[in-house]
Amino acid sequence: MITSAHNPRVKQAVRLRDHRQRRKEQLILIDGVRELARAITAGVALREVFVCQELCRSEEARRLLENLPSSGGQRFDVTEAVFAKLAFGQRGEGVVGVAEVLRQRLEDIVLPTNPLVAVLEGVEKPGNVGAVLRSADGAGISALVVADPRTDLFNPNVIRASLGTIFSLPVAAAAPGDVLAWLRGCGLQILAARVEGSVSYTEVDYRQPTAIVLGSEAQGLTSLWSGDGVRAIRLPMLGVADSLNVSTAAAVLFYEALRQRT
Amino acid sequence: MITSAHNPRVKQAVRLRDHRQRRKEQLILIDGVRELARAITAGVALREVFVCQELCRSEEARRLLENLPSSGGQRFDVTEAVFAKLAFGQRGEGVVGVAEVLRQRLEDIVLPTNPLVAVLEGVEKPGNVGAVLRSADGAGISALVVADPRTDLFNPNVIRASLGTIFSLPVAAAAPGDVLAWLRGCGLQILAARVEGSVSYTEVDYRQPTAIVLGSEAQGLTSLWSGDGVRAIRLPMLGVADSLNVSTAAAVLFYEALRQRT
Repeated sequence: MITSAHNPRVKQAVRLRDHRQRRKEQLILIDGVRELARAITAGVALREVFVCQELCRSEEARRLLENLPSSGGQRFDVTEAVFAKLAFGQRGEGVVGVAEVLRQRLEDIVLPTNPLVAVLEGVEKPGNVGAVLRSADGAGISALVVADPRTDLFNPNVIRASLGTIFSLPVAAAAPGDVLAWLRGCGLQILAARVEGSVSYTEVDYRQPTAIVLGSEAQGLTSLWSGDGVRAIRLPMLGVADSLNVSTAAAVLFYEALRQRT
Repeated sequence: MITSAHNPRVKQAVRLRDHRQRRKEQLILIDGVRELARAITAGVALREVFVCQELCRSEEARRLLENLPSSGGQRFDVTEAVFAKLAFGQRGEGVVGVAEVLRQRLEDIVLPTNPLVAVLEGVEKPGNVGAVLRSADGAGISALVVADPRTDLFNPNVIRASLGTIFSLPVAAAAPGDVLAWLRGCGLQILAARVEGSVSYTEVDYRQPTAIVLGSEAQGLTSLWSGDGVRAIRLPMLGVADSLNVSTAAAVLFYEALRQRT
């Protein structure tokens, strides 16, 4: 039982809250029962799992603890005070894991036949990226690509907002131009969601290999996504607001594609 | 120019951050440029508007200030330090309004022909209620009803997450049984979104007068919504998670209804 926050392992894990440290060590932090369970199921290489037994009250948490020995991560029990240093915000679900960072290169993505790919450009809020991942998981999206190589895809807030679905979905981060070239190379139809899009999103055919590209609410997509072979689609906005939240718009588009495909 | 946070008007407005005080005074706080502009457009009865000119930098903010004189609200200019006491979080858009609370009774809602009504039960997070309002606005929903009379519909965080669309959409809060009776009285088909729903949401016909009922992610809907004449619909979940965020699910359902209706 680790009782001191000065324990070197604890201190090293706490340092991983800083993205520079995560990048340097090539490690990520996974906070929460469901998130950690999904990482284990997806075969993520766990290094360490810090457990505060008193906080592991749910049935889900107990099941996770039973599965820990087979996960490959070394278990360290900690006191509530030590756990408070490790966990994020007011979660306190009793488990925080340290894992090796996952691959996030375009060339590592293996697409299925007739893929449906989601692309985000300029969506900076980790909560929004995570929320899009969660909807992408539900709608059976093949892969999610962030068109910005600096994006910290495995930011703890992305993991959390995705409810751990990020571990089961192929993801990548790359420069916008590389993403566009990759989509073209994969032979995908490219649909860019734009407030001023010329075609309503329900009027396009998603049954062919397709990429759905979304930008930030504030800036929209850059001009890279208005070139040859990119179709601008729009969502009807019947009220006073001119756009939906990006994760909401993504879900509407993903589920329309799924509807047409089934 | 009000330079002191001890100014009685400022103190009274700051007290409205507390929901008991809002209830007692029957007043609400509107924070943000877009939110206040939409309230004015919707004819909300403004009492006072506190303005910090230095923070009103956007074009939208300047336009709002020009329209203020016709809004009926009394303008008070305040210093940045005073404004910091009035505004919520890190917004600092330079305007906070005090307005009379809006009606939120079922019997005040006037439905159009062939209405599409959204109902939320047990959705407690103001951010989620606001996000649903924003999607409802976009999809042209006729009214949003919260099946909980204690819900603080005009909570500042609801207003903010709705981007002010709450002011242009008919809204009401009432006891669940009253809401169900009202929906039936209006002759609406009732569709309840449930994880274990028997019919996929794309297999129902939304072209008739319809209510879409959603519950909280954690608890789902109560048994009230499984009685006679209520159909349980589900969204396909193809990935590892078993549900979408409530505001995401709402948007997918609202836009499917809109698609069928157009």
